Amino acid sequence: MTTLAPAADPAAARAAFRAGLAVPSSGWAPGHTQANLVVLPRDWAWDMLLFGQRNPQPVPLLDVTDAGSWETVLAPGADLRTDLPRYRVWRDGELADEPTDVTDTWTEDLVAFLIGCSFSFETALLDAGVPVRNIEQGRNVSMYRTDRECRPAGRLSGPLVSMRPVPGHLVATAVQVTARMPQVHGAPVHVGSPAALGIADLARPDFGDPVELADGDVPVFWACGVTPQAALMASRPPFAITHAPGHMFVTDVPDAVYRQP
Amino acid sequence: MTTLAPAADPAAARAAFRAGLAVPSSGWAPGHTQANLVVLPRDWAWDMLLFGQRNPQPVPLLDVTDAGSWETVLAPGADLRTDLPRYRVWRDGELADEPTDVTDTWTEDLVAFLIGCSFSFETALLDAGVPVRNIEQGRNVSMYRTDRECRPAGRLSGPLVSMRPVPGHLVATAVQVTARMPQVHGAPVHVGSPAALGIADLARPDFGDPVELADGDVPVFWACGVTPQAALMASRPPFAITHAPGHMFVTDVPDAVYRQP
Repeated sequence: MTTLAPAADPAAARAAFRAGLAVPSSGWAPGHTQANLVVLPRDWAWDMLLFGQRNPQPVPLLDVTDAGSWETVLAPGADLRTDLPRYRVWRDGELADEPTDVTDTWTEDLVAFLIGCSFSFETALLDAGVPVRNIEQGRNVSMYRTDRECRPAGRLSGPLVSMRPVPGHLVATAVQVTARMPQVHGAPVHVGSPAALGIADLARPDFGDPVELADGDVPVFWACGVTPQAALMASRPPFAITHAPGHMFVTDVPDAVYRQP
Repeated sequence: MTTLAPAADPAAARAAFRAGLAVPSSGWAPGHTQANLVVLPRDWAWDMLLFGQRNPQPVPLLDVTDAGSWETVLAPGADLRTDLPRYRVWRDGELADEPTDVTDTWTEDLVAFLIGCSFSFETALLDAGVPVRNIEQGRNVSMYRTDRECRPAGRLSGPLVSMRPVPGHLVATAVQVTARMPQVHGAPVHVGSPAALGIADLARPDFGDPVELADGDVPVFWACGVTPQAALMASRPPFAITHAPGHMFVTDVPDAVYRQP
């Protein structure tokens, strides 16, 4: 039987999810990098790979598989078809299913993209004494459309940021901590002025939850991992698989590997 | 008429080369990043883009164009078909021509890759007081095959390093300076032991010239930009264009942009 207590070991976490446990991966195998998953037919994979090359802040590619392969260098022995707690299957840009195993839909034509996520840098911020308000408030991070477009690649384009309130005297620390982690979104893209990004009202995020600013907090904006998923779904590929929100792939890679000295 | 004195301005350098001047680009537009060029049919472009994603040290991709386009964000207004001093045209992996203009062979099917080169980090080493022996000795850098394979991507694989002798007391400086420049090969992959890389004799490089070590010098090995070209030619694509050795693309991007603080 699987246990409900989060496993400390990445392989044990993946084994629990492979056995059918379908819970958010937050808190599992702490200290190990978790990754977003996007799986696409070869025909669309070029656009996604180029979109990542051109926009490394919102789309930090940690690994890209050979077509048909379910293996990744981020976790030797893992099976990308079974080892995430929950998936989403998309057909023509519409959500078609949310299974816990995608073995039966995985064909030779599919390429998997594993993309860095902000879990890693939120841990680094907390370690550096920077409060993370969305975690304190038990909410999802606030995400907004902006008027700053990514550089398009083929059928993919799109403009998204996440916002975290940071106490003014800790903004410099937050910048330094995240700048050292370019593979998980890196330094903020903007500090201080929602209007400069075309955001009318911080209290009304386009995705995620509203997060309250404490007295003296400044809004700090980072490139956001929802960007590639939103760009992709807007362009309606015939078929795609992604992780379900919050149900990420747990890698063997220690977070420290993605922190520059 | 074009002048033979190297232009200080990148646009002026490109204009001279576009007008037909066919000289090595070293010393032109100093302080601006120069890039290697590889141009491939779409069918091969996936392999090259994936090879770069998987091997960012030897293949640091600075820009990848849309198929058919000769424009790059690295130098708005430049024309990749005319603005390099000299090209090489390859058919079935064999050198077919060395023209100064490739407009007539540039088709809608071609994707151009602009790849960071060690010119940028050699300047940074000199600025930091680290002697660059190949420059002192007026020779090309020494390059070697190694027994460490890159991670393959499709039809591309290969193992190459360049070696620069560094005085022992400056090895730490050389590591720190180049580690801050991941987009132009980054930190060394090895310091000190040729045998550990499967290199039998430093005096017999596989490419480039032998460079002599001064008393107290230690051999320092970096990932090498010849890797993607050698990998590509070994796999014999039906058609490819590259820069001619030493005849690079002069970008508008200041070297400082690729130096992390």
